[in-house]
Amino acid sequence: MIKVEEARKLILTCDDRVRHVMEVSLEDALGYSLAEDIISLIDMPPFRQSSMDGYAINIGDSSNYKVIGEIKAGDNHDFHLTSGEAVRIYTGAPVPDTSNAVLIQEKIEVEDDQIFTEETPDSGMNIRPIGEQIRKDELALKAGVRINSAHIGFISSVGVNKVKVYSKPSIAIVVTGNELVTNGLVLPYGKVYESNGPMLRSMLASEQYNVPEVIRVEDNYESTIYTLGTTISDNDVVIITGGISVGKYDFVGRALKNLNVQEIFYKVNQKPGKPLFYGKKGNTSIFALPGNPAAALTCFYIYVYPLLKTLEGASKKELNSLNLSSLSNYNSKETRAQFLKAVIQEDGVQILGGQSSAMLSAFGEANALIFLPENTFNITKGDKVKTILLPW
Amino acid sequence: MIKVEEARKLILTCDDRVRHVMEVSLEDALGYSLAEDIISLIDMPPFRQSSMDGYAINIGDSSNYKVIGEIKAGDNHDFHLTSGEAVRIYTGAPVPDTSNAVLIQEKIEVEDDQIFTEETPDSGMNIRPIGEQIRKDELALKAGVRINSAHIGFISSVGVNKVKVYSKPSIAIVVTGNELVTNGLVLPYGKVYESNGPMLRSMLASEQYNVPEVIRVEDNYESTIYTLGTTISDNDVVIITGGISVGKYDFVGRALKNLNVQEIFYKVNQKPGKPLFYGKKGNTSIFALPGNPAAALTCFYIYVYPLLKTLEGASKKELNSLNLSSLSNYNSKETRAQFLKAVIQEDGVQILGGQSSAMLSAFGEANALIFLPENTFNITKGDKVKTILLPW
Repeated sequence: MIKVEEARKLILTCDDRVRHVMEVSLEDALGYSLAEDIISLIDMPPFRQSSMDGYAINIGDSSNYKVIGEIKAGDNHDFHLTSGEAVRIYTGAPVPDTSNAVLIQEKIEVEDDQIFTEETPDSGMNIRPIGEQIRKDELALKAGVRINSAHIGFISSVGVNKVKVYSKPSIAIVVTGNELVTNGLVLPYGKVYESNGPMLRSMLASEQYNVPEVIRVEDNYESTIYTLGTTISDNDVVIITGGISVGKYDFVGRALKNLNVQEIFYKVNQKPGKPLFYGKKGNTSIFALPGNPAAALTCFYIYVYPLLKTLEGASKKELNSLNLSSLSNYNSKETRAQFLKAVIQEDGVQILGGQSSAMLSAFGEANALIFLPENTFNITKGDKVKTILLPW
Repeated sequence: MIKVEEARKLILTCDDRVRHVMEVSLEDALGYSLAEDIISLIDMPPFRQSSMDGYAINIGDSSNYKVIGEIKAGDNHDFHLTSGEAVRIYTGAPVPDTSNAVLIQEKIEVEDDQIFTEETPDSGMNIRPIGEQIRKDELALKAGVRINSAHIGFISSVGVNKVKVYSKPSIAIVVTGNELVTNGLVLPYGKVYESNGPMLRSMLASEQYNVPEVIRVEDNYESTIYTLGTTISDNDVVIITGGISVGKYDFVGRALKNLNVQEIFYKVNQKPGKPLFYGKKGNTSIFALPGNPAAALTCFYIYVYPLLKTLEGASKKELNSLNLSSLSNYNSKETRAQFLKAVIQEDGVQILGGQSSAMLSAFGEANALIFLPENTFNITKGDKVKTILLPW
C-alpha cells in the first residue's frame, strides 16, 4: 500500500500529455493556462501620468504660478510650460514634458489665472513615470499561469488581447455500481441514489473544464469493457466511480486488466479513500475513485485535481494549503493518514463531526481538509495542522 | 468620509431586492442560493448497509458459520439467518434483518460452505444503521446555502433532484473615461487600454453570475445620463468604473444626481479605493468604482461581492478570512485603512511589493488581501494580520 506523499508525487510527475496550443481572445481565456510568456506591448503608463487632480507646474522661484491651459484624462495636448507656469490637470492625464511636478488641488488657492501654493514642490511629485508599472517588452506573466480575473485585467492593460493557452484535457466520468438509482426515480430496497456523477460534474464545471455527460455502465463484464475501452481511447482522463476491489463481481478491475491499463498505484494508506486506483494506458490517466461520496470528493481534490492541472500545463497544481492552529481536540486510533473535513475560522481551523467516509453531510459545512500524517492519534487545541483550502 | 467597517455594514444590511424564486434541476443549481430548506426524502442509508466486503452473520455460540447465500450491492435478497448462519456480503449491500454483524473477509478462513473466525463479533459490527447519515424529513441543507459541488452530491444522495433557488441579480457594467482605448487598437498619446471592463466581467463569470456585455459610455453629459438612466432602471446592480469626482468634467456625478440616485456613501477612508461611491435608486444599487484597476478589484471583492451575495439571498456574504502571521515587515505613513496585496504561504502571509493603486501586476501573484485598520503604521514579522482570501 502506497503512502499519500508517494501517490501525490507520482501524480504530479505524470506530465506526459501532448498539449495542444490554441490562441483565444482574452475574454475567453479565464481558467486556461498560458502556453507562452505574456510580454507587455507598451510602457505602462505609456506617458508621464498625473496621479491627482490638480495643477502640473514647471517649478519656479516663487509660490505662485500662471495657469496657461488645461489637460483632461484622454487629452493629447502637450503645452510648453516655462518656469512659473502651470496647467490645470486631472488624474490620469498626460503631464507635459515641460512640467516637473503636480500640485494637489486641495492645497491650492486660485485667483483668475493665478494659483498660489504653500508647499515647496518636489520634482516628480504626483507624476507616475513612464513604465513605472511595466516596461514595453518586459515579462508580464509567465507561461503556466492559470488565468484568473486579475490576470485578465493586467493582460488587458498591457495591450494584449489574444493569448496562447493550452487546451483542456478531455475528461470522461463513468459511474458503476448495481446499487445506484438515478435521482428522481423510486428507490427499491437495497438501492441508493447515485450522487457521485452529479458531484464530479459540478466540481469539473467549477474549475472551468468541459463538462462531460455522466456515463452509467451496466453491471456486467461486456458493457464494462466496452465502455471503458471507448472512453479510455477517446479521453485524456477517465474518472470511474464505484472503485475496484477483488473478486468475481469486480468487472471494472477485470476490464482494466484486460484493456492493458498499467497500474501506477492501487490502495493508498489513507482514510477516507483507501481503495483508490490510478493507472495509465498510453497517455490516458484512469482513476477509480471509491464509491463513498465523501471519499470520492477527497480523492478528487487530493489526486485528480493536481493531475488535471498538470495535464493542462498549469504551474500551480494544488489547492492552497497552510498550517493553522486547530480549534478542536481530536483522538483517533487510525494508523493511516487522514483527511478530516474542517471549517476555517478567524483564528484557526475547526474539525467537523461526521468523518465517516459515507458521510457527505459534513462537507455541507466544510471549506477545508486537514491532513494528518500516518500514526497521528491526538490533536490538541492549538496544535498546528496542515489545512488544505477547498475551492469555495 | 466613512470608515471601512461602516461602509461594509451599510452594504450588508442593504437587502431590499424583491427576489424571484425559481425551481431548477439539481444539475443547474451550482452557484445559486437555496430559497428553501432541503429536507431529506429518505433515510440515508435507506437500509442496514454493510460497510465492508465479508460475511453477514447471525452471531452464534461457536466460531464457525454456515454460508447459505450471497448478497451483492444492489441486490434485494433478504435471507433468513438462524444462529450460526452467514451470507457472503459486499460493501454497500443490504444486511438481512436476521443478521447482527458483518465479519471482514480478510479475517476469515473459508472451507466449502463453512467459515471460521478468530474474532468475537460485536453486535452491529460493520453495519451502517438505517438513517445514520440523515433521517427522512430531517433538514439536509438550510435555505440561504450557496450551492457548491459537495452540496450537489449531498442533495442528490437524499433523493432531491429539483431545488428552489433565488434568481441572480441582474448586473450592468458601465465603463467611463475619455482616456480609455479598447484593447487591440492603436494607443494614441494620452490614452491607456481599458482593462476594468474585461476584469469585472470575468470576476462575475467566476462567481456564476450572468455576464453582461460591457457598456462603454461616451464622455459627454447626454450619453452618460441616457446610459445610466436605462441601465439603472433595467438592473438590480449597476457597476460604473472610472469613478466620480467633483468638477465640470464629472458627467457621471452630475448624471447620478439628476437621476435622483441617493448617495449611501461616497469616499471611504481606505487605500486603495478612497473615491468609492455607493448609491441607491429604488431597489437598484449603483457603485462607482475607482478607475485604477487594482482599486477597482479591491472594491469589487470588499463591497460589490458581499452586496451581490446579499441580493441573491446567500447566508454567507463575504470571502473567507482569517488571522495569519505576517511573514513580512511593513511600514507606512498611511492613516487610512489599507488593503495590501498578499500571498498566503504554509506558515503565514507575505505582503507583496507594488501596492500602488495603479499597480495590477502584484495581483498577478496575490491570492489574498491583508486588511490593516486605520493608523496602522508598522507590521512586524509574526504579527497577526486579518487576511481575506481571494477566490483563486
